[in-house]
Formats: sequence, C-alpha cells, structure tokens
Amino acid sequence: MSILVVGSVAFDDVTSPSGTVKNILGGAATYFSLAASYFTKVRVVGVVGEDFGAKEEQVFHQHSIDIRGLERAKGNTFRWGGSYTDNLNEAKTTFTDLNVFETFQPRIPKEYEDTEFLFLANIQPTLQADVRRHMDGVRLTGCDTMNYWIERTNSELRETLKHVDILMINDSETRQLSSEHNLLRAARHIFKMGPSTLVVKRGEYGAMLVDKNGVFCVPAFPLEEPHDPTGAGDSFAGGFMGYLAGAGTTNDAALRRAMVYGSVLGSFAVERFGLERLLALKKSEIHARARHFAKLTQFKL
Amino acid sequence: MSILVVGSVAFDDVTSPSGTVKNILGGAATYFSLAASYFTKVRVVGVVGEDFGAKEEQVFHQHSIDIRGLERAKGNTFRWGGSYTDNLNEAKTTFTDLNVFETFQPRIPKEYEDTEFLFLANIQPTLQADVRRHMDGVRLTGCDTMNYWIERTNSELRETLKHVDILMINDSETRQLSSEHNLLRAARHIFKMGPSTLVVKRGEYGAMLVDKNGVFCVPAFPLEEPHDPTGAGDSFAGGFMGYLAGAGTTNDAALRRAMVYGSVLGSFAVERFGLERLLALKKSEIHARARHFAKLTQFKL
Repeated sequence: MSILVVGSVAFDDVTSPSGTVKNILGGAATYFSLAASYFTKVRVVGVVGEDFGAKEEQVFHQHSIDIRGLERAKGNTFRWGGSYTDNLNEAKTTFTDLNVFETFQPRIPKEYEDTEFLFLANIQPTLQADVRRHMDGVRLTGCDTMNYWIERTNSELRETLKHVDILMINDSETRQLSSEHNLLRAARHIFKMGPSTLVVKRGEYGAMLVDKNGVFCVPAFPLEEPHDPTGAGDSFAGGFMGYLAGAGTTNDAALRRAMVYGSVLGSFAVERFGLERLLALKKSEIHARARHFAKLTQFKL
Repeated sequence: MSILVVGSVAFDDVTSPSGTVKNILGGAATYFSLAASYFTKVRVVGVVGEDFGAKEEQVFHQHSIDIRGLERAKGNTFRWGGSYTDNLNEAKTTFTDLNVFETFQPRIPKEYEDTEFLFLANIQPTLQADVRRHMDGVRLTGCDTMNYWIERTNSELRETLKHVDILMINDSETRQLSSEHNLLRAARHIFKMGPSTLVVKRGEYGAMLVDKNGVFCVPAFPLEEPHDPTGAGDSFAGGFMGYLAGAGTTNDAALRRAMVYGSVLGSFAVERFGLERLLALKKSEIHARARHFAKLTQFKL
C-alpha cells in the first residue's frame, strides 16, 4: 500500500564532531520519504522554492518517490542550520529561515487521494489537521510534533491528535505533552488525546512503543562513528511507517518489525552527513542490519 | 557455584517523589547479595558497627547468605543519605558518614577461599585489588567503581582492572574512565585495561553488554511507579553475577540471560523503598518477569 507524507523539504547546514556540511538537501519529508521508499510507494506534499532544481528532483525520482504534491513557490526553500557536540542526542539550532514554508498551505493532488497510510511530519498542527481531514479515508495516520507546537499551539495540536493513530515523538516531547515524567503514565494520558499507539524516540537509547498490548523496546544500533543525527527521527518514522504500509498490516508482530526497520533506517541515516547513506542503501543491507538487531536483543530463557 | 561479594553494608536515608525513609538497611553488598541469593550461594565480606544487630543479621540469614566475613567493628555502620527528584536516574547525596568503613581492611575467612565467582562492589580500588589477589583461584571476577575513584585513585583503579573480567559501571563512568564519549570506542579502551566484558548500566534506559562477540542490549523494565532507585545497580549486578554463578557457565547465551536476570532484579529493587521488595520475592515472580522481558524485546523478522 502507499503512504503520503506532508512535511518540510529543506536545505541544511550541519556541524558535528565529524565536520561541517552546508546547503545539503534535508527536511523531515525528505528523510521520511527516502527511508519509506525502500518498503513502499511514497507520495510527498510540501513546498520548495526556486533554489530547488533538477538535481534535487532527481533524488526523489531515483527512488520513485512521487512529488506531484511538492509545490514550487516564489522565493527560497526552507533553510535550517544546526550543530551537535559529542552528545549527538541534542541539536543546537543556529538558524531557521522559513522562507516559502512561512505561507505553506498543503494542497493534495487528486491522484494522492486513494493513499492508505498518512504521515504528518512535524509542521504547524492546524496544517496537519487540514491534511488529515482531506485524507479522511486513510487506514492509519502517524504524526510527529515538537516542543514549539506543544507550547504555542497546544489546543490546535490537541485537535489534530484526535485523528491520529500513532504519535511518534521523543522523550522530552512525551513528558511535555502529557505533563507526566513517567513514560507509561504519559502514554495513558496521550491515549486519552486520541492516539492508540505511542512511539517514543530516545536517540542513542533506541525507541519504545506503547499500546494496549503493552510495551515493546528496541535499542539504537551501536555505531562507532555516527556522523550526523539530523533526520534520524524522520528516517526512523519513514522506516516504521513505510514498513507498515508495505506490509499492509498493523498487527502486533508487524508493529514490532516496524520498530526494528525504523531503527535500521535511523541508524543508516546517522552514519553519514545528510542523506548520503540513505541514498545509497541496498535492500540487502537493510535486511542484514535487521538481522543484526535480532542478535543485539534476542535471548533464550 | 558460589559467589563472594566485598562491599558496603550501610544504613540509608532516602527521599524520592514517593516519600522518605530513614535508617533502613542498605549498601552495595547488601543489595547485591540479596539479589544473587535467588540464584546461588552468596558469601559477604564487609564491615558493620555496633548498631548492626540481630534484626539486620536476620535479613541475611533468612536468605541463606553467609556473613562470616562480615566484620563487627567498634562504632557505627556506614551511613548514606540521598534524594531523588522526578528524574530517578540521578541521586543527590545529602550526607556520607563512613564510620567503621573508613578503616575497613577486608579479611577473607578460610571457608570462603574456594569461592568460584567474585564481585568487587564499589569500594576503594586498592581494597578491591587486595581481595582479588587473595582470591586468585576464582573463575570470574566482576567489578564496579564510581567517578570518585576514577578521579582520585586512577592508577590504583587501573591496577585493579588488570585482574577483572567483567566491569559493570554506568554511562558516565564509562565515558570518564575511557575519556571517550562513544560507548563502543569506550569499550575498546576498557578492554585494553584488563576486562574482557563491559556492562554499561543505563538506569531507565536499561543495560548494554559489550564483549568480543559484539553487543547485547536489554531495556529497563517499564514501571509506572518506581519508588526508590537506590541499590538498583547493585541488584542488577547481583542478579547478573548470581545467575552466572548459579548456572556455572559464562558463554554468550548465559551472559544474555544474566543481563535479563540482572534487569529483573534491578526492576524489583526500585519498586519499593530499600530492600522491601527484594526481601519478599518469589522465584516464580522472577521467572515471570524474565518472560515479560522477552515480550518486551522479542520480534520475528
């Protein structure tokens, strides 16, 4: 089955202990769609500026990602700069130029309307809700958000969450949204807001899924030389949602595998700067790493 | 097979978001030996003062823990006070009264000398080395330490580590000891110091084992109402080492199970203040929780 993602396409400047890169293609929708493209047909809704050219288009085309929903607007594409110290868990944003993203109004092409899976990447919650309403026939909706929206547009976010199945956020966002430090109690609060499943992304500590069946944990893949954590969470979401859409099933066993494939794609994303590693992946590498996750976690009592 | 632990026996004052307790029996050797007692025969080397009476002795006797190596000295037993906020990962020490511990010189009873497994809980590294030298016939030595010894007695600690098989410390101690942020690179540094296995205890994020076979991760058991993390790491070590000693084997499959049983005992320890939960455990509860860990982590690709 196919998946639609709405979110940012961007140019990023990134500094990490491994070096500095400037002006590289990024954005949540970009990482998400590349990661998901290894499992299923992906459709993108977003906006880019006049600086988004044939070279950037090619990145999507080469992975058969449908960008008919990627609007071209006057001006520059959204730009973000961030830096990481040794603690790769936390980005320090150095600048954010919204540019064409400032007035973005998602428009969904007719051809996208039969999409079965939907992912609302981290954008203004009212825009997320608009897309969700338009796509009211979807089978499953995933959603990301961030502290900025939790603080400033809380009631709008609550409205969006009413129509979300799987919320995928990090530890601190989970605690902030629920006003609850303990993650199990936080999950119960969040279930009352709408989602039936919470996926907590925990950076170097992996990820945790909570739903009515209980809890499932997956560690982060141990890497000796992570280069750039930018997009790791979006790549996780892309691997997770992409796997589910590709499998066309969302039962407990599939959700567990989705957690593993999410972690696999997240781990590849951080191996190199920007999209470099995600662009060059082979399916055999993805499956080999998934088996490596089994070795990392499996035991017999 | 049997296990010998050398370490502190203490009286603790603890404040956490769940309340305050005063003057309760604690100490690394106490938590360790109680946790290990569910798997194997445990022998304790340590020191207590005149305030350690029949009631405290009973705690050990009831779990068939051999305390012939627990020296009675003039004065008071070691006392520690600590408090936790919502973030149960970090204790703030409010006081430390070394008392009889200040002049502690471990003495190992003749009857202990055939012990096969050894655990050097967190005490001054020269004392750990003395015990290790005395027990030169042991099959496997585990060791804990802390930032205080890494900073102030680094060369003594390095000497001790030459004769340790499994080092069990937390994230920040791992980074400090190795001067390396990345845990895989840190492990390689530490292997050069002596240990062939590193177990990194990560509080609410679980634990990670690194050895020549690779990496194995286990999450922390998700609890809705953890009361008191005091002794969680020592209970983890007790479950881990106790399981290995009881099984009498240290192959890869056994190490994985040891990680699970360590996490099981650590999770029970934090459920109530002090030793309360560890004292009242049933073996069936331990095995049920180990199976719950399987549910928490296992997947089929």
